[in-house]
Amino acid sequence: MPDTDLILKSVPRAIEWTNGELFLLDQTQLPLTVVMEKQETVEQVWASIYALKVRGAPAIGIAAAYGLCVAVKNHQDKTLAQFMSFLEDRADYLDSSRPTAVNLGWAMRRMVSFAKSTDVKTATDLYALLAEEAVKIHEEDKALCRGMGVNGVELIKPGMGVLTHCNAGSLATSELGTATAPMYLAHNNGVSFRVYADETRPLLQGARLTAWELQNAGLDVTLITDNMAAHLMSQGLIDLVITGTDRVAANGDVANKIGTLGVAILARYYGIPFYVACPSSTIDLKSATGADIPIEERDPTEVTEFGARRTAPKGIKVRNPAFDITPHDLVTGLITEKQIVTAPYIDNLEALFGD
Amino acid sequence: MPDTDLILKSVPRAIEWTNGELFLLDQTQLPLTVVMEKQETVEQVWASIYALKVRGAPAIGIAAAYGLCVAVKNHQDKTLAQFMSFLEDRADYLDSSRPTAVNLGWAMRRMVSFAKSTDVKTATDLYALLAEEAVKIHEEDKALCRGMGVNGVELIKPGMGVLTHCNAGSLATSELGTATAPMYLAHNNGVSFRVYADETRPLLQGARLTAWELQNAGLDVTLITDNMAAHLMSQGLIDLVITGTDRVAANGDVANKIGTLGVAILARYYGIPFYVACPSSTIDLKSATGADIPIEERDPTEVTEFGARRTAPKGIKVRNPAFDITPHDLVTGLITEKQIVTAPYIDNLEALFGD
Repeated sequence: MPDTDLILKSVPRAIEWTNGELFLLDQTQLPLTVVMEKQETVEQVWASIYALKVRGAPAIGIAAAYGLCVAVKNHQDKTLAQFMSFLEDRADYLDSSRPTAVNLGWAMRRMVSFAKSTDVKTATDLYALLAEEAVKIHEEDKALCRGMGVNGVELIKPGMGVLTHCNAGSLATSELGTATAPMYLAHNNGVSFRVYADETRPLLQGARLTAWELQNAGLDVTLITDNMAAHLMSQGLIDLVITGTDRVAANGDVANKIGTLGVAILARYYGIPFYVACPSSTIDLKSATGADIPIEERDPTEVTEFGARRTAPKGIKVRNPAFDITPHDLVTGLITEKQIVTAPYIDNLEALFGD
Repeated sequence: MPDTDLILKSVPRAIEWTNGELFLLDQTQLPLTVVMEKQETVEQVWASIYALKVRGAPAIGIAAAYGLCVAVKNHQDKTLAQFMSFLEDRADYLDSSRPTAVNLGWAMRRMVSFAKSTDVKTATDLYALLAEEAVKIHEEDKALCRGMGVNGVELIKPGMGVLTHCNAGSLATSELGTATAPMYLAHNNGVSFRVYADETRPLLQGARLTAWELQNAGLDVTLITDNMAAHLMSQGLIDLVITGTDRVAANGDVANKIGTLGVAILARYYGIPFYVACPSSTIDLKSATGADIPIEERDPTEVTEFGARRTAPKGIKVRNPAFDITPHDLVTGLITEKQIVTAPYIDNLEALFGD
């Protein structure tokens, strides 16, 4: 493992837990304004998740775990039974902030199960352990990101151009991010390379978040609109693609932000390796293929309006799928925290969990 | 030729010449506001072209030809020699409004040459002939568009999904447009089909203009962001792609709005025919291949700002090529006003001009 102190100082933090207090970076105001908002109440945490102030499945899970601590912190004078009952209620409440984020429900179930598994005698003792467990969830995510970074860093050679899509960075997870982890570590190791960030319409996570966090960390990043990727590839400027993923099926099909499929097809046409960074927790062996993964269709106004200003005709029909499915045969490899998994995916993904 | 009266009533007009007065649709205000601005002076026409109120090479040429009439209209009391000298001066002036629009210089040279070729005796008589010549330029463009429509209409079958990119419609030309001409005629003929319009970042010509003009004309049009095309193709929703072009090289390579190359590669991957509508005037036999066509790099703020509001971090590096080159082997056919030209392009394009 390389010395990551340098790069860890430069990556932005979406979530901070300091002296028992939770701070969330309001990502809806990026890149214009950088504000760490102190979360005073569980209602505020719920609203921060709902309004996408904190986003990205891992980051939501971490924020909710800390948010549950915020919820119960001032209830340590309750009996242990009362405290436990209140904890479960607040966990359900936080879980309702975004029903589709896998890590949210997972984090809430883990916190409640953990609470039930302890043999503490007082609410105060339980609160202290819950805060530790939330930190543990956070630390585990950091370790996953570092693992993906270590496994992916060798893919990035000096002089390369690396394309990424959407934000699978420190803002969506913790510290090194997923797709960005190999980039941060390569930069940390002194490798000189260029990153191209697709702006990622409709919500511009690439322009607002990826460009911002990579620029902040001192990487050489260039912003492009999504439809410029093919041109840059035709000019020989892209040598490698790394994206994140929301879910990987048992056969290696990849669900990720809309536009990922197009990038994968372009990469195949130009013979450019296409890698997907995914913690093994994102691999869903219960989904046999990408066809089993539902694709969320979001509000048309994301496409027809910009900053509440209409940019398309009134009443126009719109499609707004939030994700697409990249078939496994377009995926060069899956960068997990354990190893880089390549085809045949059905066998190799199963083996990953058999280790 | 089908009866086009019906559809011709529904397509928007970018340019109107009525009773010796010029009106231009201010396309910068679309789709929020539809205003036909009367052009009182040649300075106003110059500013309208410069500010992209009228855009699209053919439309600019037509507007400038009428604009030259606006320039000289109130100078019919001059001697013929004075009038001619003034005409040439104003033609140079209008030509300076957008140096890269091919049809602009062409229209100005044609108007001045025409003036010199007449044997009129008075400025008044010459003005009358110039106004007729401008109308002729306009009518010729309408005929080109109809020709492409007639040649391309059979490509569109009932139930098809047709994808287009940018705006190569009536707003960029006259009446039926180029890429839209087959769509308008198919609709006119009662063929039921769906159009998908790429929004076309960064300037959103698809969202603001194509979606608007097709919706206005009663076509079934759905707006998507550029990065959704691959997903829709993977779902079997796209059966045909038709785009316009800014220049076609002698070998059939196509220069068109940034993003066209990506669409062509996706179409190839999914086995979808990819056609380009181009009047034969757009075919440049002096450019041997696409590599001979310069690609304009535009202002970074088109990518980093939206409606004067910044959406990317300060100081971020940006690429903003306005066009890309689609290699001829990805092009199923070129829909010209004479015929649909297919490979081998070098021979067949040369033959087109030998007819």
